[in-house]
Amino acid sequence: MATVDETAIDPSDAYDRLLERSEKLTNLRMASMALGWDQRVMMPEGGTPARAGQLSTLSSLGHELLTADEVATWLEALESDGVTRDTGNAESADGLTDEQAAVVRELRREHDRAVDVPADLIERLTAHQAETQQVWQEAKAADDFERFAPALEELIALHRERAAAIDPAENPYRVLYEDSLPYLPLETVERIFDELREHLVPLIDEIQDRGRELPTPFAGHTYDEETQMALSEAVLDVLGYDRTHGRLDTAPHPFMSGNQFDARITTRFREDDPLDALTATIHEFGHATYQLGLPKDQYGTPLGSSLSSGVHESQSRFWENHVGRTRAFWELILPTVKEHFPHLEDVTVDEAYAAVNRIYPDNLIRVEADELTYHLHVILRCEIDRAFVEGDLDIVDIPEVWNDKMDDYLGVRPKTDAEGCLQDTHWSYGFAGFQGYTIGSVLAAQLDAAMREDLEVDALVREGEFDPLREWMTEHVHRHGQRYPTEELIEVATGEPLTAEYFLEYVDEKFRALYGL
Amino acid sequence: MATVDETAIDPSDAYDRLLERSEKLTNLRMASMALGWDQRVMMPEGGTPARAGQLSTLSSLGHELLTADEVATWLEALESDGVTRDTGNAESADGLTDEQAAVVRELRREHDRAVDVPADLIERLTAHQAETQQVWQEAKAADDFERFAPALEELIALHRERAAAIDPAENPYRVLYEDSLPYLPLETVERIFDELREHLVPLIDEIQDRGRELPTPFAGHTYDEETQMALSEAVLDVLGYDRTHGRLDTAPHPFMSGNQFDARITTRFREDDPLDALTATIHEFGHATYQLGLPKDQYGTPLGSSLSSGVHESQSRFWENHVGRTRAFWELILPTVKEHFPHLEDVTVDEAYAAVNRIYPDNLIRVEADELTYHLHVILRCEIDRAFVEGDLDIVDIPEVWNDKMDDYLGVRPKTDAEGCLQDTHWSYGFAGFQGYTIGSVLAAQLDAAMREDLEVDALVREGEFDPLREWMTEHVHRHGQRYPTEELIEVATGEPLTAEYFLEYVDEKFRALYGL
Repeated sequence: MATVDETAIDPSDAYDRLLERSEKLTNLRMASMALGWDQRVMMPEGGTPARAGQLSTLSSLGHELLTADEVATWLEALESDGVTRDTGNAESADGLTDEQAAVVRELRREHDRAVDVPADLIERLTAHQAETQQVWQEAKAADDFERFAPALEELIALHRERAAAIDPAENPYRVLYEDSLPYLPLETVERIFDELREHLVPLIDEIQDRGRELPTPFAGHTYDEETQMALSEAVLDVLGYDRTHGRLDTAPHPFMSGNQFDARITTRFREDDPLDALTATIHEFGHATYQLGLPKDQYGTPLGSSLSSGVHESQSRFWENHVGRTRAFWELILPTVKEHFPHLEDVTVDEAYAAVNRIYPDNLIRVEADELTYHLHVILRCEIDRAFVEGDLDIVDIPEVWNDKMDDYLGVRPKTDAEGCLQDTHWSYGFAGFQGYTIGSVLAAQLDAAMREDLEVDALVREGEFDPLREWMTEHVHRHGQRYPTEELIEVATGEPLTAEYFLEYVDEKFRALYGL
Repeated sequence: MATVDETAIDPSDAYDRLLERSEKLTNLRMASMALGWDQRVMMPEGGTPARAGQLSTLSSLGHELLTADEVATWLEALESDGVTRDTGNAESADGLTDEQAAVVRELRREHDRAVDVPADLIERLTAHQAETQQVWQEAKAADDFERFAPALEELIALHRERAAAIDPAENPYRVLYEDSLPYLPLETVERIFDELREHLVPLIDEIQDRGRELPTPFAGHTYDEETQMALSEAVLDVLGYDRTHGRLDTAPHPFMSGNQFDARITTRFREDDPLDALTATIHEFGHATYQLGLPKDQYGTPLGSSLSSGVHESQSRFWENHVGRTRAFWELILPTVKEHFPHLEDVTVDEAYAAVNRIYPDNLIRVEADELTYHLHVILRCEIDRAFVEGDLDIVDIPEVWNDKMDDYLGVRPKTDAEGCLQDTHWSYGFAGFQGYTIGSVLAAQLDAAMREDLEVDALVREGEFDPLREWMTEHVHRHGQRYPTEELIEVATGEPLTAEYFLEYVDEKFRALYGL
């Protein structure tokens, strides 16, 4: 206890107080999340000014509670009691269990990332994000990047200011990146991205050169929203979505929101394609399984919280792709689809399976992309983000660089910025947050491979027995909360270090078979 | 400035800080209210534990922000700058405008009512309220008052503790009463209640003795929920409910929730009676007009907040009774009702008008009561509450006293406690909060009479021109927020002191005509 001064408190008391603070912080975040759900799903549009005020108050109170001096005091008392800092690993000693050490590690990380960021910077950033969101909508509608550029310039200045406050000695991109994927080294992610790009670009080329057109049995019809909603609900029933802890609504951009007691999902409908809503629904269901699998008795602590955007996305991608896009799933679900849309009665499982896995590289829009080209959309954004944040890319050059990369990776060039660099809303918020979408697919494939060592996944899916799959994920991933950093979690869950190998094998096997390569 | 010590801050700085604090407090309350709406309308039932945690955190942070030492310092600096305390009147002097003085007065009142109440008492009270709510549901289902009594005993002990913390020298009932109707002296309210009881009991007797049965043209049919919802929406369209600042949903017990940017309402449906939903919808619409009429640029301050439960209820009762139960309204709306329910095509305006105003004193349930007997249900509760809080009524005697009073006032005696003293959920929360429901009707009648001096209300209603009515209320009531205490507001709005005269005239005229007395 040499480093603790005389005013220091007893570590077990410090731990209790830290937990209490953690619970308050969680409650504030979950309140904000519920208000955000409401804003996107239920709120009349005129409610914005009051809602913005509420969210801003909750966020500034959270910042105060997280950065308060007493938090540092408690953390110091606990760390000198046996927690190793800086490594991302928690080692127990003296009074703390492994789980407690993980709690201390996570609160320390959050505290350190917030304590030197002035409250007024957070406020300016939040206000500017709201404004940028508005400007982006107008600029996209007008296909006018120049209109968006000044807001983007200001946004990056604010984010650089925040990065410098957190760690002035570090590359700002690296600092911002850690918001999204803490503990997963950027080098590891970029190595994986290199592997993916080197593998996927030629695979997509091969598919295009092969010239085989997969069937599109769902095309050419109109699908009314009401029946699509009923179908999504029916599919969720089959998957076992517990409506006492969740609900399905619609939103323009589907998302999941909530915690282990209340994990809600949204979907959206395309009139000409029921697969769009179905895959979105299953994807968001996957996110919900993660929240609902977190330990209920750890609500309010890091042990009851999801780990990172990457691990979250592994759960949604697992259900969307490794369940929802399998032949076994379509054997199970096609009759339900036909019940809702009787005009599909002649569609075969093979046709449906092919349709849901079709590759269409001429698509320009990330959120409409297929399972392969999606990752090149993500990689492109990460590359541009990094160059822009590090000052290697001028704002005026963004549209051109975007279009060049699209051409390079996918052989297609946007004709407008609305279909190019203005398509996504992400720059209304920040930078360096996209890696998780692709890392999620990589993790999903690795988890899927490990699950298949233990379970007859296809047979279970064919029978509609989804509980064992969900329970496997809860046992291997969900129940740990933030107990382990990502790489450690994957090793604990699968017995192997994080690797892109399973993902590349999975796509090779599936798409070579589908396209006869 | 004699009373201000050397650490005191500049009054204008103090005022800015007080406003900032007020905005935070408002945001916390509005966030809680939105989360409460969600809980009652949208939340899956399993979400309760997390939601309870969120609400508890928001409430305890609000208590801390309201009772902080700096708030007292700012208030003192401002009061010594020219605000008179204690009188309920704000007088400007030196630096403060009338409006600013009202802001100071309201924050002072809130601060003083919270500062001596320990945070842990609030937490115990909140936790016990949740528990009592549960016990009440079980006791009501089992028709077992004895099961409810211990929770009620504990609740009153906690409320007495809170009252003693606020003002140990004052009668606890009086202290608790001021939560609900600040500035309106209890003596005034009880004098009005005496007048009402003395007037309404014989009037209801006369109606019963007269033996005239009003027509019930809506009875004997089934009304499906979907069409009733469409009818409620259509009526709201006619009334001019702005959906960019509101929405209609369903809830078991209808309520309004929100602020000047987002005021949402709920309704509920009885399969055998469309009037139930219609009047509930119009009632809640009235509440929403008040919120939506508050000045938007004063959101976050007392000048942008509703005044009291009584004034709120005056707005709902005005629309429900002085608009929605008039013959003019039924001339306007009956065709819309018939469009939705074509089997009503032969119903006349006279029949509909009579049906919506029918008196049925044999009803035992407050929330299903007619316009006259309703107030005796309220008065009964207030009398029992007061005797109980003041220690003049033993808990075991409550059921008997309840039934005696029902017999006395309405000539009907509940056979079970489920239909008697267990019918309402109010004792799960507190005591002394019912006066506003009846005061609201009294205020509504007085405001209605004043409005009719300025506007041809019936002609406007018949034409579906509701904007002038709403604008009159905004001009005379809403726009003032908490600028004036209730009695002053009514005098400003109507040119006369608060009086029950208009209410008694209104019910006499309407019901004597309807029943041929």
